[in-house]
Amino acid sequence: MTEIREATEADWPHVWALFQSVVAAGDVFAYDESTTEDVARKLWFAAPSVCHVCAVDGSFAGTYYVRPNQSGRGNHVANAGYMVNPEFRGRGLAVALCEHSLEVARRFGFTAMQFNFVVSTNTGAVRAWEKCGFAVVGRLPRAYRHKEKGPVDALVMFRQL
Amino acid sequence: MTEIREATEADWPHVWALFQSVVAAGDVFAYDESTTEDVARKLWFAAPSVCHVCAVDGSFAGTYYVRPNQSGRGNHVANAGYMVNPEFRGRGLAVALCEHSLEVARRFGFTAMQFNFVVSTNTGAVRAWEKCGFAVVGRLPRAYRHKEKGPVDALVMFRQL
Repeated sequence: MTEIREATEADWPHVWALFQSVVAAGDVFAYDESTTEDVARKLWFAAPSVCHVCAVDGSFAGTYYVRPNQSGRGNHVANAGYMVNPEFRGRGLAVALCEHSLEVARRFGFTAMQFNFVVSTNTGAVRAWEKCGFAVVGRLPRAYRHKEKGPVDALVMFRQL
Repeated sequence: MTEIREATEADWPHVWALFQSVVAAGDVFAYDESTTEDVARKLWFAAPSVCHVCAVDGSFAGTYYVRPNQSGRGNHVANAGYMVNPEFRGRGLAVALCEHSLEVARRFGFTAMQFNFVVSTNTGAVRAWEKCGFAVVGRLPRAYRHKEKGPVDALVMFRQL
């Protein structure tokens, strides 16, 4: 059974452990191994971010955050980030998390959602976000230093809500 | 005589006053009138931002900051922001500030520069940045709530250094 719910303080250690393993791979997030727990928490867990976690049969399987992408005159556009625990990949959880986050963002009054920095070689993610209604609206040439592949493009993806 | 130099603490009141007048216009920055001095300072003046100021015949005429646009694996791409004092507009200072900032960014080791949120109706700015070698690489539909015009597109602009 898959459950997605708002995170509580008790979830933070799971989120932080997953964050560390994801950034260590060096193929998805700008954040790298030098990222402190405090910085990760500010991004993923602390207000204005709202963090949700996903459990599959009671086990921590993934997480996402939603937050305003800009302040003031741009704060009607949400930003979000997603991580799926490696053990639970390949079963559509990224799409499930994203669809859940779109509902949450609508409920908060956001009218659009933007991803600022989708690594172009992360084709699974690009496909998942397209499945969720996002379009590539920008391409940042060689803006991401992939751990294995060197400099690769990053994509800006966007959808109205 | 136009002088551009690194800012000192004594410059902050000028930068903050200009920041307030620019955000009040509601046609250039996501930041709006509710922005606190602390938030403005973190964006424009505090590390990792490096702030420069421009004086024309000894009078404060404008300012810019340069900072990494992303952390970790994206920190080779700089971000920058510019403001010109209304009294000194129309004489190419935006271009002069931008060209100066490109040199500073190169000196810091950045290999590209990105603007995340150029308001599409701010055609003077778009032209100035194109003159400085930037290209529009993305368009964010209705991502900016213009004070007079309502929701308008924002542009992502980029150049290698």
